Amino acid sequence: MSILIVGSTALDSIKTPTAENPRLLGGSASHASVAASFFSPVSLVGVVGEDFPKKYLQLYKSHKIDLAGLQILPGKTFHWAGEYEVNMNNRRTLLTELGVFETFNPTLPEAYRNLPYVLLANIAPALQHHVLDQMKKPKFVVADTMDLWLNIAMPDLLKLIKRVDGFVLNDSEASQLTQTDNVFAALKKIHKLGPKYVIIKKGSHGSILSGPTGIFICPAYPLGNVKDPTGAGDSFVGGMMGYLAKSKGSIDANIRAAMVHGSVTASFCCEGFGLTRTTKVKPADIQKRVKELEKMTRF
Amino acid sequence: MSILIVGSTALDSIKTPTAENPRLLGGSASHASVAASFFSPVSLVGVVGEDFPKKYLQLYKSHKIDLAGLQILPGKTFHWAGEYEVNMNNRRTLLTELGVFETFNPTLPEAYRNLPYVLLANIAPALQHHVLDQMKKPKFVVADTMDLWLNIAMPDLLKLIKRVDGFVLNDSEASQLTQTDNVFAALKKIHKLGPKYVIIKKGSHGSILSGPTGIFICPAYPLGNVKDPTGAGDSFVGGMMGYLAKSKGSIDANIRAAMVHGSVTASFCCEGFGLTRTTKVKPADIQKRVKELEKMTRF
Repeated sequence: MSILIVGSTALDSIKTPTAENPRLLGGSASHASVAASFFSPVSLVGVVGEDFPKKYLQLYKSHKIDLAGLQILPGKTFHWAGEYEVNMNNRRTLLTELGVFETFNPTLPEAYRNLPYVLLANIAPALQHHVLDQMKKPKFVVADTMDLWLNIAMPDLLKLIKRVDGFVLNDSEASQLTQTDNVFAALKKIHKLGPKYVIIKKGSHGSILSGPTGIFICPAYPLGNVKDPTGAGDSFVGGMMGYLAKSKGSIDANIRAAMVHGSVTASFCCEGFGLTRTTKVKPADIQKRVKELEKMTRF
Repeated sequence: MSILIVGSTALDSIKTPTAENPRLLGGSASHASVAASFFSPVSLVGVVGEDFPKKYLQLYKSHKIDLAGLQILPGKTFHWAGEYEVNMNNRRTLLTELGVFETFNPTLPEAYRNLPYVLLANIAPALQHHVLDQMKKPKFVVADTMDLWLNIAMPDLLKLIKRVDGFVLNDSEASQLTQTDNVFAALKKIHKLGPKYVIIKKGSHGSILSGPTGIFICPAYPLGNVKDPTGAGDSFVGGMMGYLAKSKGSIDANIRAAMVHGSVTASFCCEGFGLTRTTKVKPADIQKRVKELEKMTRF
């Protein structure tokens, strides 16, 4: 089945201690959509400016991402620039130019409103609400977020959390939201805010799901060399939703395998700048790493 | 089969934001021996002073820990005092009184020298060497360590790493030893120092084994409330060695399950001050959590 993905569609300029890569295709919706596309058809909702390179539209198309919901507006594409420290764990934002995103207020194509799977990738909670308002009867809705929205849009975010089936955030965001450093205590507190499924991402330590079938400890694929972690969280949730959308059976029956497939997709994301490595991935590459992770976690 | 465990036998005074517990039974050998005792007979090598409470000797005995190798010398028992911050991740040492440990130079009882499993729990590398020198033909030797020895006894430690089958350390120690923040890059570098099995402990994120059958991602048991993490790493490695010593078959066939049993034993350790919770554990409690972890990692 098909997924609707809304989020940022951006140009990312990424600096690491060893390299500098200007104006790569980035944004939460770009990473999530490419990741999901390995498993299911994707309908993208986003906005770019007239400066958006044609090759990136081509890249979306080569992943069979439906672009009827991607607006191209007069003005500049959202541009983010950031720099990673030597250990690749800390990054600082050098520049944020919202461009056409500042006034983005999408009206969904009619065909999008019936899509069963909805991923509200990281973007302002007000926009996530706006898109969700237009959906008719989605089967499964997941929202991702970032620290920025905890800092400047908490009321909107809390209302959004109530409306979704699944909520995804990283460990430092979970700690900020719940005022506890303990992941398992945080999961319990977040369930009380509404969602049936809560996933806390822990970067190279994997992720933890809390849901109706209990806790799932999802491993990260071992990487000896991380080139650029930008978008890894988006790839994770995109891959997960793509896998869920293609799977038969209940969410509970599939969500663990979905997370592992998302985790593997995110591992490829980390091995190249922007989407450069992810876009070269073949389905067999994903299957190989999933099998390896299965071996690495069995006892 | 039986295990020899050498390490510190101490009195720990532990302060957390909510409680203060003076002169608890502590030390790496105490935690490791009690943990191992759930699976195998343990022979302890250590030293205490004349002030060592009789009730702690009784506690060792109630776990059927052989004390022929525990010297009681004139002077004071090693006393450590530490304080944890609110999040329980950072601790600072308030006091270290070595006492009788300062001149500890054990001669092993003859019966100990033939023991097949040897755990060189955290203690000065020179002492770990000294004990290993007296062993006749151990089947499997594992050493644990701490940042202190990386700082003040690196040459001894490097020589020790060459002599052991398995080496265990935590992620920040691995980073310090190998000058890399990447756990998987660190594992490769540590193999080059000698050991066939390398385990990096990551606290609440579990641990990673690298060995002849590849990588094993070992989960930590989910704890919503950590009372006192002191000794958790010692409990982990003690439980692991205890399980290995009781198991038939090769190390490779058993080490993953051994780590999970160690991980579960460590989870109990964290739920009480010092050894107060661990000593109340029944074998069935351990089995229950191992089964739960099995469920929480399957996909």
